[in-house]
Amino acid sequence: MSFRFELIKEEKNTKARLGRIHTPHGVIDTPVFMPVGTRATVKAMTPEEVRDLGAQVILSNTYHLYLKPGHELIEEAGGLHKFMNWHGPILTDSGGFQVFSLGDLRKITEEGVEFRSHIDGSKHFISPEKSIEIQNALGSDIIMAFDECTPYPATYEYAKESMERTTRWAKRCKDYHKNPDEQALFGIVQGGMYKDLREQSAKDLIEMDFPGYAIGGLSVGEPLEMMNEMLDFTTPLLPKDKPRYNMGVGTPDYLFESVIRGIDMADCVLPTRIARNGTLLTSQGRLVIRNAKYKKDFSPLDPECDCYACTNYSRAYVRHLFNVDEILGARLATIHNLYFLIKLMENIREAIRTDSILEYREEFYRKYGYI
Amino acid sequence: MSFRFELIKEEKNTKARLGRIHTPHGVIDTPVFMPVGTRATVKAMTPEEVRDLGAQVILSNTYHLYLKPGHELIEEAGGLHKFMNWHGPILTDSGGFQVFSLGDLRKITEEGVEFRSHIDGSKHFISPEKSIEIQNALGSDIIMAFDECTPYPATYEYAKESMERTTRWAKRCKDYHKNPDEQALFGIVQGGMYKDLREQSAKDLIEMDFPGYAIGGLSVGEPLEMMNEMLDFTTPLLPKDKPRYNMGVGTPDYLFESVIRGIDMADCVLPTRIARNGTLLTSQGRLVIRNAKYKKDFSPLDPECDCYACTNYSRAYVRHLFNVDEILGARLATIHNLYFLIKLMENIREAIRTDSILEYREEFYRKYGYI
Repeated sequence: MSFRFELIKEEKNTKARLGRIHTPHGVIDTPVFMPVGTRATVKAMTPEEVRDLGAQVILSNTYHLYLKPGHELIEEAGGLHKFMNWHGPILTDSGGFQVFSLGDLRKITEEGVEFRSHIDGSKHFISPEKSIEIQNALGSDIIMAFDECTPYPATYEYAKESMERTTRWAKRCKDYHKNPDEQALFGIVQGGMYKDLREQSAKDLIEMDFPGYAIGGLSVGEPLEMMNEMLDFTTPLLPKDKPRYNMGVGTPDYLFESVIRGIDMADCVLPTRIARNGTLLTSQGRLVIRNAKYKKDFSPLDPECDCYACTNYSRAYVRHLFNVDEILGARLATIHNLYFLIKLMENIREAIRTDSILEYREEFYRKYGYI
Repeated sequence: MSFRFELIKEEKNTKARLGRIHTPHGVIDTPVFMPVGTRATVKAMTPEEVRDLGAQVILSNTYHLYLKPGHELIEEAGGLHKFMNWHGPILTDSGGFQVFSLGDLRKITEEGVEFRSHIDGSKHFISPEKSIEIQNALGSDIIMAFDECTPYPATYEYAKESMERTTRWAKRCKDYHKNPDEQALFGIVQGGMYKDLREQSAKDLIEMDFPGYAIGGLSVGEPLEMMNEMLDFTTPLLPKDKPRYNMGVGTPDYLFESVIRGIDMADCVLPTRIARNGTLLTSQGRLVIRNAKYKKDFSPLDPECDCYACTNYSRAYVRHLFNVDEILGARLATIHNLYFLIKLMENIREAIRTDSILEYREEFYRKYGYI
């Protein structure tokens, strides 16, 4: 198959690793942050802008694309890459997280999940096979096994049952997968906050030999220390020569802590979502641009940033755009926030290269206000 | 002063003219369509995108900028060009049209117009002097005299009184204007649909010797034939060596008919506004992208267009974006519609050059579905 993970270097003082993922649509340097393009568009951005920020891979959502415009339509259009005009690597999730999040609108059986659309209430059924069928139609470079993201907190009993079902479903996904040569299917380690369950999950999935592994069910409301503990325990169980993906992680601290524990990939809607509300990630911490104190502030959003927004516009201007609800405000904030995280990951890769990630983390945390 | 109009050529068969307006921020080829950037941003666009579409000048609105963020703030930021990062020519209107449109919220006296903000109901007063003060602070290259856009229909008596006041206000604007060397102040011919009033207005304004003249109070709901009749009558009254501006004109037919009658400049929110609702101007007429028939239409928005949107995306994709309310939909439609009108004006200039504007108009009207 054309998918391949190349481990370039392990950092001296931590478990951080430098790597390279080869996909049919290009190479991804890891550790990497993946911007989210839920509905076949990274909100407010063109694909060229996303690429020019340095993004090497984007994530798109199976559940949303299945409902609208439908995976058959995207397949007819020539696949997701062509449909949305993004010619780099794409990772799609399995739809599991979204359908499980529907709460009362869904019913889980061994066969799969029956649910009602959040858009029009229509009835649907997604099984492991259906999830793979959709992702095969989309043609994304990395696809995910259909799992249950175990909620936090969960009883041991629930976490165990859920993890075991996720494992059985992973097997069905692998068996059903039609394009293993073009699309790399990742297994997802579950098990809640229980180490023996994580161990069992990892062991069973590794036996199935996936080209990559996600660690699911983290960053779901548990304290950072608990995520760290689970990562400390789980990543060493995973094969060194396969990429490791921590799903749904997007704040600078969660990214640092994940990378230091051996994570190669992460994604989150956070930078794009808070951008549209006028919250900016800056080297000095978060900045809420609507705040009155920026009314006559003609300095850049982040004085240390060299993105398009920071180079060309003032806080006063961007504040004005948000105050009068202009689209350009959302655009500039999105550009800045994505660039901020992409640049952070570039810096992190450089710090791994020079075995100085702990020093870089401390410097960053101090400036950002974490410590 | 650094403002200068250069008349390059008059078309053989019509009154259409080819010209060039020199401003402190660059040259404008005429006839020209000016995109509107009401609140210091052309909605959904960056300035670079606007420029790359071929736009040579944009229009911004004094009333809106006065209310938010305030002209003093923009002056403090270094002027409107710097504030919004558009370094080409800018024309600002006088605010008159907007305050007169407030209906019951405004009261006209000889001194000016008292009105309540459409945003928060706060009380304001704009006089000719105030309008110029604001426009001086904004620093736009072309500024407009504070006038009353006579509504249609209007009685002879009302149109006369209104026109005469507009003339007196034009004089006050000229007297108050602080930067005549950097900012060209245009007078606005009014008089409703009454030829003798138009004649009087033109005569009085020409005596004051403005560097350019707008014909106001057209395209306000009157039939196209009536606008044509007024233009046929009025433009020959205006000096040949000064640019002529028909305010608020933006559909292809109104643009063609204006240019053929000697108009050099026009502006309208139409292309950007209908874009955000998913209506596209195409060589075959208007296209409503949400229409179900485009669901699986993988052809470009306009097969004859080479804009960014038409080159890279299908109708099916843009329809999807509008269906799920994604910002990129508004962006792509705006790019296309602005390009469509800017390109139309380029073609019109070429047709004037080759004395074939009537042939070009017929060809365009046939394809577009006007005839």
